[in-house]
Formats: sequence, C-alpha cells, structure tokens
Amino acid sequence: MSAVPVTSSVTPFTQALDMAPWSQNHLQRVEQALSQWVGTDAPAGLGDAMRYAVLDGGKRLRPLLVLAAHEAVCSSAPGPANADTATRQAMDDAALRAACAVELIHAYSLVHDDMPCMDNDVLRRGKPTVHVQFGEAQALLAGDALQAFAFELLTPDHSLIPASTQAALCRLLARAAGSAGMAGGQAIDLASVGVALTEAQLRQMHRLKTGALLQGSVLMGALCGQAQGAAYDALSDYGAAVGLAFQVVDDILDVVADSATLGKTAGKDAAADKPTYVSLLGLAPAQAYAQQLLAEAHAALARSGLPDTRALAALADMVVRRSH
Amino acid sequence: MSAVPVTSSVTPFTQALDMAPWSQNHLQRVEQALSQWVGTDAPAGLGDAMRYAVLDGGKRLRPLLVLAAHEAVCSSAPGPANADTATRQAMDDAALRAACAVELIHAYSLVHDDMPCMDNDVLRRGKPTVHVQFGEAQALLAGDALQAFAFELLTPDHSLIPASTQAALCRLLARAAGSAGMAGGQAIDLASVGVALTEAQLRQMHRLKTGALLQGSVLMGALCGQAQGAAYDALSDYGAAVGLAFQVVDDILDVVADSATLGKTAGKDAAADKPTYVSLLGLAPAQAYAQQLLAEAHAALARSGLPDTRALAALADMVVRRSH
Repeated sequence: MSAVPVTSSVTPFTQALDMAPWSQNHLQRVEQALSQWVGTDAPAGLGDAMRYAVLDGGKRLRPLLVLAAHEAVCSSAPGPANADTATRQAMDDAALRAACAVELIHAYSLVHDDMPCMDNDVLRRGKPTVHVQFGEAQALLAGDALQAFAFELLTPDHSLIPASTQAALCRLLARAAGSAGMAGGQAIDLASVGVALTEAQLRQMHRLKTGALLQGSVLMGALCGQAQGAAYDALSDYGAAVGLAFQVVDDILDVVADSATLGKTAGKDAAADKPTYVSLLGLAPAQAYAQQLLAEAHAALARSGLPDTRALAALADMVVRRSH
Repeated sequence: MSAVPVTSSVTPFTQALDMAPWSQNHLQRVEQALSQWVGTDAPAGLGDAMRYAVLDGGKRLRPLLVLAAHEAVCSSAPGPANADTATRQAMDDAALRAACAVELIHAYSLVHDDMPCMDNDVLRRGKPTVHVQFGEAQALLAGDALQAFAFELLTPDHSLIPASTQAALCRLLARAAGSAGMAGGQAIDLASVGVALTEAQLRQMHRLKTGALLQGSVLMGALCGQAQGAAYDALSDYGAAVGLAFQVVDDILDVVADSATLGKTAGKDAAADKPTYVSLLGLAPAQAYAQQLLAEAHAALARSGLPDTRALAALADMVVRRSH
C-alpha cells in the first residue's frame, strides 16, 4: 500500500518542495517560449530591441507566479488535472502564454521607465538600457510593440484554449497594465516626487505601480487552472500581499544594497526625493512590514483550500528574502 | 404597396447615402463613448493627458470604418440584423467598443510619434501636442495607458458580447498595432530616413505603418457583424486598398497642403528626407495611384455580395478626396 501515490484532492502536501529544480524547469520553459515568440516577425531593428529588452535577464518572478498559481489550482480536484489530455494541454499552453505576456508587459514598462524623460537610467540587469543600446526612438517603439504582443500571445488563432479564457486573460492583463493599474501607479509616482505622502497614499501608489501586475499574474494563472470561488479569492489576497511586499522590499534594497548586487542604480529613490516605505516608516519598521505581508500571503494560501501551494509559498518567501 | 420597406437581403441599395447625417450620428456616438470611457478611472494628471490626446479632435476615420463595416454586414441576411434584440444590441455594443479601441491605438501612436525622440512635433490637430502640454513623461505614460485601455474596452466583464468575439477583436487589434503592424511600420519608417526604397519596400512600410490599423478597423467591424467567407475577404481587400490609399494621399497632402489646413506641420516628410510616394513616383503618378486604389476599394465592395456598402464606399471616397 505504501507505493500508492496520494491522489486525494484534499490531502495537503506537507513535504517541502525543492524549489531549485522547480524554478529551473519552469524558467527554462519561459525562456524558451520567449525566445521562440518575441520579435521574430518584427522588422530587424525593432525585433532586436524587443529581444534585447526581454531575453537573458530578469528574475521572471511574474511568469513564475502565473505558473505556480496555475499548478496550485490544478493540484485540486475537480479541475483541469482531471480533464482530458487535450484540455489539460490547452490550459498548460494558456498558462505559458500568460506567463510570457505578463513578462512582456513588465519588460516594456522597464524600457519606457528607463528612458531619459522618465528615470533616465543607463543600467538594467547589468546591461546598458534599451535606449542606450538602440536609441530612444527604437526603445519607445520596442516598448509599444511588446505591449501589443502581450495581447497577441493571449489570443492565438486555431487554438484549443477556450475563447472565454483568452478574453478573460486579456481583461485581467489590460486592467493590471493600464491606468487603473501599472501605468496609473507610475503616474502617481511621477506626481509624488518631493511630495509627502501618507502611508495610505504610498500603499495605493505601489498597489497600482507594482502590485497590480504581480497580483494579475497570480490571477491569470488561477484563471488558467479554472479556479473559482474561495480559492480564487484567496489567491487574489495572496497576490495583493506579495505585490505590496515586493515593493516594500524594493524600497529596502534601494537603501541597503549596492548597484552591483541590484543590477541597477542603487539609492536612486532617495536621490530623486521619491517617497518610499523606508523614508516614511524607517528601515526596521519597513522590514517588519515586509514580514507581516509575507505572513498574510501564507495565511491566504492556507485558506485557499488548495492542496499544494508550496511553489506559491516559496515564491512569496523569495520575494521578501531576496537580495536584489 | 409603395409604403412597404425593402427587406430583401439581396436587393442592393441604389439610392445614394446622405453621408452628412450618417457621419454626424456615428461621430456623436463615438465622441460620447470616448468621453464616457477614456481616462475616467485614471489618476488625475494621467487621465487629463489621456483625454486631451483622444477627445475633441481627429477625423475618426478608423471608428467610422468599424461602424460602416459592421452595418454593411448587418445589411445582409442571415446576420445579426435578423437576430434577437439582445444579440443585436450586444454586437452593436461590440462595434462601438471596437470603434473606440482602434481610435485609442491611433491616438496613442500619435502621442508617441510626436515626442522629441521621434518626430518632435509641437502641433497636432491644431493644438499643442501632448508632450508639450503635459511633459514628456506624462505623454509616454498616457500613450502606454491608452494602448492598454483599448484592450480593456474590448473585454467587458458581465457582457452579452460573446467571448469568441472579444477574443477575436483583441487578436485583430493586437496584430494590427504590433510589430507585424503599426509599430513594425514605424520601425521601418525610422530606418528609412535618407534611404532610397523601392516601391515594393515603400508599400510594405505603409501597409504596416498605416494600412494595418485601417484594414484592422474594417475587419473588426466585419467581425462584429459576423461576416464570413467571401464577404469577409472582400472587406479585407477593401480595407487594404483604403489603407494604402490613405497613405498615398497623406504623402500628396504633405506636399500640396499648408500646415493650417492639415492641422499639423506640412512638408515635414521632405524636410526629414523621408521616402514618400510623391518622392518616388512624382506628384501626378501618385495622384493616379490614389485613384487606382480607390477603384480597387469600390471593386472589392461590389464583389462582397453585401447589399448596402454605401457608407464604406463614401468613406473610401472621403479618404482619397480629403484636403487634410
């Protein structure tokens, strides 16, 4: 009897997940897919800039959140794990496309953020930024094309991915990226230089600027696993907590890390007189707040009712404990 | 008997369409919808820039193409014209959303095109360009947010618009806007300054840069009317011809019109040493080519089998005969 695998949908997995092979396997899938898809049908110069912006760099946190959320939902029955093979493959394809799409949105936002009229950064992921490498006009276009391509990836023709999934993924991504999400948060950021924000205002800025796309990643993965009801709501709470924790830690790292470790310019928030969690709360309370948000993320996973949320738990840990 | 309206789906409408009330009615719907939707949930500064970029300006050619194509298909049976009221209303809503979405993509491309790192234009539709009015950073963000919002508009939640229509509209728009469409054409444009292009290369550049979104507008309207087979193909040909004609006429107007009439800087292609149909073919042959494309557009409508394509025909005429 001891050789029979655990198949019950309600038995939680208590064994620790070895994240190294999990990450390696999933990162490889994402890198391969991005390399296969991005910029391949673009005119030469534009395609080069798009690929430079996206490939060979980044932690791929957002894609990993998509895939981990998808798998967490699939660990539950009834769900695609118990669906026929074609359906399961279609939803796996949807999750991989969603993983790449959120990364494209993230990558385009970095390209535009780094431009001289925004943060004027010359270093990103240890390499010259896109506008330094390809010129400002090409960087602007590459960012624009990456955003459009994210939605193209989500809507493949002649695919077994249900139209309802394709439409819902576009809806989630558009909201997470747009004026009520990432772009809106950046606009608040722009208007906040030298301004004393309350903690509520700072939280709102970060919820939009960084949190919306991180939470959106979790929700897109959950959608590909056809999560519903309490599980979807709990994953939404998890995404919100991780999204905010990410930014609190970013603020902390901007103060305590150096540029070489970060792969981007350190100390630039303070130099630019931008409000941060560290400037508002102080360093130690900001660190405590990050821990509190991590606990909230774990609590949300616990109440999701999903049997295997180990990858999501490990990603939350990684977000808070990272050094860059 | 004379009071009975013509209901046969195969009787062509031979009576000329009075375009003035048609345009006025449809423009009003588009303006109202854009005003209601754009920038209303954005942070203040961003929302202002988004609305400034979109409202109170432009010929709205792309939205009118969407609505005219939708109506042309609906003039045929079987189709949504004969569907139940709720379905017809849903598809009308889809067409209006598609009309606004293509205009948002067009508007964002103008905002980014006008920026100093691209064309560095200070005048658009007779007003200061967005970056002059709101600063470069806000212009960059407003363009980005407008693109995202186009896809949000196409994917309303709790809507009777079928998910298959929502997904297909996103697919068409993403392709028309991205690296194999508008953004790709702009990249070719960028690389073509001072370069001697062949006519085939110039045509390819314009097919992407301007043609893809104009053709996409027609196809999105056709999709909202559930056009299929020969009708869809004919409308695709119509869109391709109108799209290219638009750019040929743009090249002509850049030479023969003045800035006040154009509402933008005249003569800037020649000043920037950009290849155009006029520089390649000469003025009179370029004008003859525009007429040839207009004839192709009308021929495509004739073979569509659709009973009432008068609005599409009139829009093609308008594209070629416009003075700005």
